[in-house]
Amino acid sequence: MSPLQFQPLISQPTPEFWSALTALKLDKLRLDDSIIPLHAWVDEGREVANTNRMTGQVDDNVGVDGSVFLPASAFEDSGKQLPVTSTVMHGLFKNYNTIEQFRSPQEKKQVFDSVVQQMVASFDDDQPLLNTFILFAFADLKKYSYHYWFAFPAFVAKPSWQLDSDFTQAPAQDVEEIRQLIAERGVSATGLTSVLLFKGPPGSRSSAPLSKASTFFAGVPAAERLLAFHDPSSLPNNPGWPLRNILFYLQTHHSVLNVAVICLRQGDTSRFGRLSAQAAAPSEGKPQAVGWERDGSGKLASRVANLGPMLNPTRLAEQAVDLNLKLMRWRILPDLDLDRIASTKCLLLGAGTLGCYVARALMGWGIRTITFVDSARVSYSNPARQPLFQFEDCLNGGKPKAECAAQRLKEVFPSINATGHSMMIPMPGHPIGQGSEEETAGMVAKLEDLIREHDAVFLLMDSRESRWLPTVMGATLNKIVINAALGFDSYLVMRHGAGPLDSQTKRLGCYFCNDIVAPADSLTDRTLDQMCTVTRPGVAPIAAASAVELLVSLVQHPLGGFGFLLRAFNDTGFLEGLTGLDKLYAEAEAVLDNVDWEEDSDDGGL
Amino acid sequence: MSPLQFQPLISQPTPEFWSALTALKLDKLRLDDSIIPLHAWVDEGREVANTNRMTGQVDDNVGVDGSVFLPASAFEDSGKQLPVTSTVMHGLFKNYNTIEQFRSPQEKKQVFDSVVQQMVASFDDDQPLLNTFILFAFADLKKYSYHYWFAFPAFVAKPSWQLDSDFTQAPAQDVEEIRQLIAERGVSATGLTSVLLFKGPPGSRSSAPLSKASTFFAGVPAAERLLAFHDPSSLPNNPGWPLRNILFYLQTHHSVLNVAVICLRQGDTSRFGRLSAQAAAPSEGKPQAVGWERDGSGKLASRVANLGPMLNPTRLAEQAVDLNLKLMRWRILPDLDLDRIASTKCLLLGAGTLGCYVARALMGWGIRTITFVDSARVSYSNPARQPLFQFEDCLNGGKPKAECAAQRLKEVFPSINATGHSMMIPMPGHPIGQGSEEETAGMVAKLEDLIREHDAVFLLMDSRESRWLPTVMGATLNKIVINAALGFDSYLVMRHGAGPLDSQTKRLGCYFCNDIVAPADSLTDRTLDQMCTVTRPGVAPIAAASAVELLVSLVQHPLGGFGFLLRAFNDTGFLEGLTGLDKLYAEAEAVLDNVDWEEDSDDGGL
Repeated sequence: MSPLQFQPLISQPTPEFWSALTALKLDKLRLDDSIIPLHAWVDEGREVANTNRMTGQVDDNVGVDGSVFLPASAFEDSGKQLPVTSTVMHGLFKNYNTIEQFRSPQEKKQVFDSVVQQMVASFDDDQPLLNTFILFAFADLKKYSYHYWFAFPAFVAKPSWQLDSDFTQAPAQDVEEIRQLIAERGVSATGLTSVLLFKGPPGSRSSAPLSKASTFFAGVPAAERLLAFHDPSSLPNNPGWPLRNILFYLQTHHSVLNVAVICLRQGDTSRFGRLSAQAAAPSEGKPQAVGWERDGSGKLASRVANLGPMLNPTRLAEQAVDLNLKLMRWRILPDLDLDRIASTKCLLLGAGTLGCYVARALMGWGIRTITFVDSARVSYSNPARQPLFQFEDCLNGGKPKAECAAQRLKEVFPSINATGHSMMIPMPGHPIGQGSEEETAGMVAKLEDLIREHDAVFLLMDSRESRWLPTVMGATLNKIVINAALGFDSYLVMRHGAGPLDSQTKRLGCYFCNDIVAPADSLTDRTLDQMCTVTRPGVAPIAAASAVELLVSLVQHPLGGFGFLLRAFNDTGFLEGLTGLDKLYAEAEAVLDNVDWEEDSDDGGL
Repeated sequence: MSPLQFQPLISQPTPEFWSALTALKLDKLRLDDSIIPLHAWVDEGREVANTNRMTGQVDDNVGVDGSVFLPASAFEDSGKQLPVTSTVMHGLFKNYNTIEQFRSPQEKKQVFDSVVQQMVASFDDDQPLLNTFILFAFADLKKYSYHYWFAFPAFVAKPSWQLDSDFTQAPAQDVEEIRQLIAERGVSATGLTSVLLFKGPPGSRSSAPLSKASTFFAGVPAAERLLAFHDPSSLPNNPGWPLRNILFYLQTHHSVLNVAVICLRQGDTSRFGRLSAQAAAPSEGKPQAVGWERDGSGKLASRVANLGPMLNPTRLAEQAVDLNLKLMRWRILPDLDLDRIASTKCLLLGAGTLGCYVARALMGWGIRTITFVDSARVSYSNPARQPLFQFEDCLNGGKPKAECAAQRLKEVFPSINATGHSMMIPMPGHPIGQGSEEETAGMVAKLEDLIREHDAVFLLMDSRESRWLPTVMGATLNKIVINAALGFDSYLVMRHGAGPLDSQTKRLGCYFCNDIVAPADSLTDRTLDQMCTVTRPGVAPIAAASAVELLVSLVQHPLGGFGFLLRAFNDTGFLEGLTGLDKLYAEAEAVLDNVDWEEDSDDGGL
């Protein structure tokens, strides 16, 4: 006879759990720190020489020490694939907003006590709540470090249960019979408590749920009473933590004081033992419970999971970039449609000072498709003002700016879809030389293809006339066109109007609509200071950032600045033959009618 | 008897010439394209098997083909070091503002004709103008390519001069005697024309300048008349171009029709020959002249010197960065003091989004000393918004931001003096732990040293209280302090006031003067969205650029924002013991009294 001691549960939250928590926090919970339900599962253990729980390496399906936690949603999705040898745990989860709140002990104690109360209250139910956990966490999403503390509430039996003699290996045929009986009953959603008690001679035993103990064991001699549970422990003489509450429940609620137990474990390592206790002492108020998990050094303290080093760096960068954006939705702009921004494909005509700054601001907004067009090479004056180029890009005649800008953008953010095209843009006022007609037609076609493939076109060139052709194409193809141009200490940022609706519909003009001078050769016969962009260095970042903010605001509009609406027209052949025009106008008007313009004008300053 | 043919001059402008032209154009001429005088020199030639003139490699001191050009200023500086074997040439130089003007032939012809007229008109002078050149150029300073076309006007003698027999090697003792006679006369500023004619028996010859030919050769038999000149040619039977005008002058102005010539060349390669001509035909109007230089392929066309590949890339980058700035002074801001901007040493407290953008804008303005202070490491969310960092900077826990930012800045512009200090800034509201007093005192001392060593301090941190200590230090040390801070779609950029003058002097306040809340811990117990800077990505570049433009405007002020004035106070021990205060105030007032405030308010918008 020796006091029975239990192997505590050891939490092993998987990286997937933290990843799911991150998404939950960023996209759903945000600042909400209510206590929410969480499910976990605990698997049978197996005796092994070396457990791997100290290494931080977690195997999803074989929790050596038995416990792997999944968030509620993941559990529900994967519940049916849980091995039959696993047991569901019901938990409460509180994710704090600050590390200081997480560290405060007061609330933790309250939650623990209330869970214990709930467990006691459930003793009268058909499915008493014996297998619970509590998880407190603070997710430092900037650093991918997760502070957490588990509790597995376990009652303190008074007097305690005794082991009549050392555990022995459970006979294979008994284990097989019991597993068969469990399988016949099926695994219910509440898992562990449904099938546990057995009686009768080996080979023809009958079973009953735990809550029937008083009647099921009534008159059954101690030697024939059998209890079985999926045991997460891996120690020969110490059953796992779940048995502790089962025994407490039998002792206090059913006055069962003698029972044999089979600790179901993996392979042929299941254990058999005989247990006994004295009648429970009269309860004085609530029963005593323990169960706060200890940290790696055995102290009663929280743990930290630092996922940074484990995560794929590229994916980590993606999440980090999104983090800053998603935080906008926590308080300031809950309705901000980040996906719409991210999916806007941007064509940057010009990879100079404006092009580089625009690309950087677009990247900051999470835009994932950025295409540069430029015909020049990186020159020595560029890097100091054009924030994608480096000194080495100037050497040996300079790299092509468009391709180089795309490459540098990828070095900043590997997940970006950036490409560059070294290409001239045909310009009015610059006659096409004899023999160059075909080449020029090719440029026009390629430019049109590029504009067609993108949602927004930025005009960021260094001459007025180079903006003309893409302006016309952008209007024809109903794309968003944003124009930015620099003066010495002034700048222009404007949104061009989209393409043809009917004449009654309000339309914005474009760069050329708003000027009385036709585009002409502005490059020939110019002095150096007229050829170079002589501008205060601070003007370009201001103009570029303003242009990007304009685009972002525009795509938050219900119609996305008409361009998104009108793109549908193209798909129906609008541009090819101008057929079915009446029908298309009607469709457009229907969309316009459905816009809640009032709401739009209130949408938070964007 | 065979017609005498001449080896044309071949221009070999040195890289130093183009470099000097670049400086002249950028800093002095700017848009001025007046014709200006230029000097060049032509050296004696030497017969060589392979001339290296086709390779573009130019040896400064031994012009194989004889002609190396220096701009007037460089010539005047170096004139006295010219070898005695060289001849000065007087030229006219026109540097066009545009390639189109350069290509237009009309003006070139006019200038050529007027130079020929001038030469003819000088025949009556003591020092006739026989050795001239014209240089037309267009300097494409963006690409370091120089388009140029030389002309070396040479008269067409009618009838032409004849060589009585092939040239022979000039006797060494004759060459020695003549060189001795030349040396005795000295080299005048006008070079070639001063000493040229000789007569008398070998060993006791006498000399005279060219303009004395009629009288000096009067009655001297043809066999005893000798002419010598520094001959740039390297061909055995073809004297160099300068002889052409000398002979034309003798033939037409002095009726000298027979003369022996010694072509002085390097080493022992001088040549001797006897020349004769018929009397000049009566002149019909102006004499005919030729002399446009041919390009590499023998055509009458301009040449291009592309210096880019020859220049040191780092130096090239420096010049290129300065180019954009210097162009501001051509038209828009002639009085812009770029040196004052460039020499302003900037301390950036914070190497985050603001710090990176501020550094880039400072670099764009040509500021050469940028120092970062930051205590953090580059995290995965940084590169997408902080335009000095790359993805790889985040790996393995991240590089220290301050050092990394400095390193990346150097990769953009190698000549920048950028350094980084990984350091915390002590903050009010954040108690100093026991045992950390010494470390904190060290941080305070280091911060003070850094502020002392710089002219301007940018406050670019992510908390309010971290700005307090540098604000106080900046005021005490009379530094320019520029503060920038971000909201979600708002920002603050302000200039702090400088340190203590007397109470009557207008003073600006600071970030903390303008708020009623004392600095306190704003970091503890904050949710993620309060800890991260939740801001529209376009706001940071706008704020950063505005902060830099504010600094640049400030240092253009005659007092440089008081800070520059008051720095003098520190040097006298102002801060150490507050001694001599009255005297210092008086000095400050004297400076203030001398400021022309009216003019200041008109200084072009900066």
